[in-house]
Amino acid sequence: MTRKPLVIDCHGHYTTAPEALAIWRERQIAGIKNPDVMPRVSELEISDDDIQNSIETNQLQLMRDRGSDLTIFSPRASFMSHHIGDFSISSTWSAICNELCYRVTKLFPESFAMAAMLPQSPGVDPASCIPELEKCANEYNAVAINLNPDPSGGRWCDPPLWDRQWYPIYEKLVEYDMPAMVHVSSSCNPSFHTTGAYYLNADTTAFMQLLSADLFKDFPSLRIIIPHGGGAAPYHWGRFRGLAQALEKPLLDEHLLNNVFFDTCVYHQPGIDLLTEVIPVKNVLFASEMVGAVRGIDPETGSYFDDTKRYIEASNSLTCADRFLIYEGNARRVYPRLDAQLKARGL
Amino acid sequence: MTRKPLVIDCHGHYTTAPEALAIWRERQIAGIKNPDVMPRVSELEISDDDIQNSIETNQLQLMRDRGSDLTIFSPRASFMSHHIGDFSISSTWSAICNELCYRVTKLFPESFAMAAMLPQSPGVDPASCIPELEKCANEYNAVAINLNPDPSGGRWCDPPLWDRQWYPIYEKLVEYDMPAMVHVSSSCNPSFHTTGAYYLNADTTAFMQLLSADLFKDFPSLRIIIPHGGGAAPYHWGRFRGLAQALEKPLLDEHLLNNVFFDTCVYHQPGIDLLTEVIPVKNVLFASEMVGAVRGIDPETGSYFDDTKRYIEASNSLTCADRFLIYEGNARRVYPRLDAQLKARGL
Repeated sequence: MTRKPLVIDCHGHYTTAPEALAIWRERQIAGIKNPDVMPRVSELEISDDDIQNSIETNQLQLMRDRGSDLTIFSPRASFMSHHIGDFSISSTWSAICNELCYRVTKLFPESFAMAAMLPQSPGVDPASCIPELEKCANEYNAVAINLNPDPSGGRWCDPPLWDRQWYPIYEKLVEYDMPAMVHVSSSCNPSFHTTGAYYLNADTTAFMQLLSADLFKDFPSLRIIIPHGGGAAPYHWGRFRGLAQALEKPLLDEHLLNNVFFDTCVYHQPGIDLLTEVIPVKNVLFASEMVGAVRGIDPETGSYFDDTKRYIEASNSLTCADRFLIYEGNARRVYPRLDAQLKARGL
Repeated sequence: MTRKPLVIDCHGHYTTAPEALAIWRERQIAGIKNPDVMPRVSELEISDDDIQNSIETNQLQLMRDRGSDLTIFSPRASFMSHHIGDFSISSTWSAICNELCYRVTKLFPESFAMAAMLPQSPGVDPASCIPELEKCANEYNAVAINLNPDPSGGRWCDPPLWDRQWYPIYEKLVEYDMPAMVHVSSSCNPSFHTTGAYYLNADTTAFMQLLSADLFKDFPSLRIIIPHGGGAAPYHWGRFRGLAQALEKPLLDEHLLNNVFFDTCVYHQPGIDLLTEVIPVKNVLFASEMVGAVRGIDPETGSYFDDTKRYIEASNSLTCADRFLIYEGNARRVYPRLDAQLKARGL
């Protein structure tokens, strides 16, 4: 425990992809109504140089500035927009976005590992996503997936995460020893601001879905990451402990905390302090979701809101051993395929 | 500041109403499909003795045990079920529930003040609720209302709280100098556990709706209470400060905190500590939502999860003056009609 930990950021999206990607997507969306203008995949041209520039001046620069070593990197969450079009639209779009992330990991193998998005579509059997999942695991060395608990984009029409419709996905995750981060995409419901309400609501919703069921009896080795510090869950941990008791579930330690993990995307010191006080350190994974929802500088600290490493460093209660777990140890345990990749590099 | 504060619990529902109420409601719901079985209002018989028993052995007993003096008391939130039936169903049901709460305040005038539910219905103009609001203010001495931001019960089909459809309600609240607590009812969406996800999501959603708009420019004296400790908002205060900045809004102190208040329905010490550290004391209102969602005893403390007064008392950072504001001072300012009632009693 004497060596410096690798700082692994388990939650980064390719939010800075070259503009050509967004333009192609706009054409694809236009093509849903008017097939004549539907673009071919081959019409999207993004060179390695384009990718390199988009990463070096953004994520990689900030990783160096802030002192993180490796980011688990997935397609831009708000761009997944599973609610747009049908399975075939989602399928083409996922393949493009996943390949781009894979190219990032090939160009910067020391700094990025891949997490895949799935071609989910509202009301479509999630088993339809398995070929893409397998491709990303086998060909792109993906270490995790993002699983959208509400592909409708804010209408919440699909079954809860404990429903058997999701089991084929969980079976594949167990087979590949990959965790899933629960992550919605953009909201098409005017009630929900995407990053200010919908993301956090989805985290809380997913956590409560897991709490109210017994999914991990069926999948004892399945691992789920609830991002954005677990939504409202740690702040209301007493409520959730009390609800588990009322529902005659075991204590949360036993019921959920062998399988559920929270990231540190909480953008102020008191929030991180609460998270690390309430949730066992073994369940906390370092993350910043950078470059993401909150890109500004906090006038109260003079530092970036999403520079979450500062809060971990400034914590009064965490020991060196705790920080080692949060930065590296837990990620290696929760993402065994990442651990294997690091070991193959002699790390 | 030397006298002991009155301990005012700003968030209590009549969750313990005599069983006849639920039976009548079941008949009303059956009557929606089959008008032949629709009950008359006069068929609901609840005596003063029934009410007295239901309160004395529950809320009043717990208030005495825990040391709170007065509860702002409204109809059971999860029973409002605005999504059931149409406006006329909601209207009859609201009138019944509000009258029952009024009778509680008449029987126990020292211990309860009234907050009203509204006869909201999905897709129906909220202005339709004004007659009930006025009746509760004028005849029942209501000091506040509960406003449901999602009368659909988890489908979130109605406009956000900044939409002009809500303005007639806000105008009345300003006229009567009454605040509104934002509070959804039961979830009919299987994605959302009512008290474990939907309530907290609604709080976060409402807060972000207010953050992203400029409602209080139009209603500078309107006051909104976000219950359940503000959902996820205080835990993610850095995120919200950052989003306000990105949306080019003023600092939250100026933008929202003259008008928005958070209650203390957070059921463990670290949550209350975060709330009172992050949110200015002037914006925190004592509450327990007792007898409510979480009725058990916390095995970690040996006390009831929802005995929130213990957490306020045990806080290391609150001064006597802070506790006075949280228990009494803020409530008198936010609920001026309650203040007037207390003054009329020489308090």
